[in-house]
Amino acid sequence: MSNAPIQNYYPEDVSYCFGCGHRNEYGHQLKTYWDGKKSTARFTPKEYHTALPDYVYGGLIASLIDCHGTGTASAAMADKRGINPAADGAPRFVTASLQVDYKKPTPIGKELYLTGQVREITDRKVIVTIQLNVDDTVCAEGTVVTVEMRNSKK
Amino acid sequence: MSNAPIQNYYPEDVSYCFGCGHRNEYGHQLKTYWDGKKSTARFTPKEYHTALPDYVYGGLIASLIDCHGTGTASAAMADKRGINPAADGAPRFVTASLQVDYKKPTPIGKELYLTGQVREITDRKVIVTIQLNVDDTVCAEGTVVTVEMRNSKK
Repeated sequence: MSNAPIQNYYPEDVSYCFGCGHRNEYGHQLKTYWDGKKSTARFTPKEYHTALPDYVYGGLIASLIDCHGTGTASAAMADKRGINPAADGAPRFVTASLQVDYKKPTPIGKELYLTGQVREITDRKVIVTIQLNVDDTVCAEGTVVTVEMRNSKK
Repeated sequence: MSNAPIQNYYPEDVSYCFGCGHRNEYGHQLKTYWDGKKSTARFTPKEYHTALPDYVYGGLIASLIDCHGTGTASAAMADKRGINPAADGAPRFVTASLQVDYKKPTPIGKELYLTGQVREITDRKVIVTIQLNVDDTVCAEGTVVTVEMRNSKK
């Protein structure tokens, strides 16, 4: 496996997502790493990404879960097909539905740690479950139903 | 009813949400209007709020649905209690869970129009359903389960 984030291998024209496109200079540039079984990502919100005082804005949490979901789907599908994203590019997934459960208020000023696992994978659809932690506390859980873009490179 | 958005009447210390706080200068400042039966909000994404080329980033859509959900809950609860938010302040709700279904790609460069309705309202919990349109097309639907903050002003 490559040690680079899967988003680095998206086709260039679909690398401008505000959440995870490494070519979107205004965006979050979330980076999803895949170890063959699970995915991880880390993100430290800005101090203005607040909801209530001292806590992270839930919309940002939803955004990170969304993009980490599509990233995990891409990496998992590449694995399933025996594709090397670094050489062949990564398939690009979009979100069909997103479910987020906010378990605990997420403190601001700390690094968020996301892990993702594949619940279901078929030909063009991947369902990913995500957990978002701060230190040892599970602050949010999410489920992302993703579908592969028809025209994305394999 | 006041013609001002409900977020104007949140207590000052909880008016800094990145999505809808009118005191967060970096944020989206979403404004939710309530007519006694349904809520509305309008938002025009920036051109860098992109997901794939020409389409709005799903994380932004989730964020807007989230904040329009808590705003709708606040306005509906004020109504239920016979409170005048302009005089008494609005109750502040937070999100327990968020579900978003992306029905159609949402074109960028257009105004998004959100409507919200209350599915269920109890003492401290409000479930809101949201529809996000561009022109006549329903691009996304959401359900937001919201709970009132214990220390918010009534």
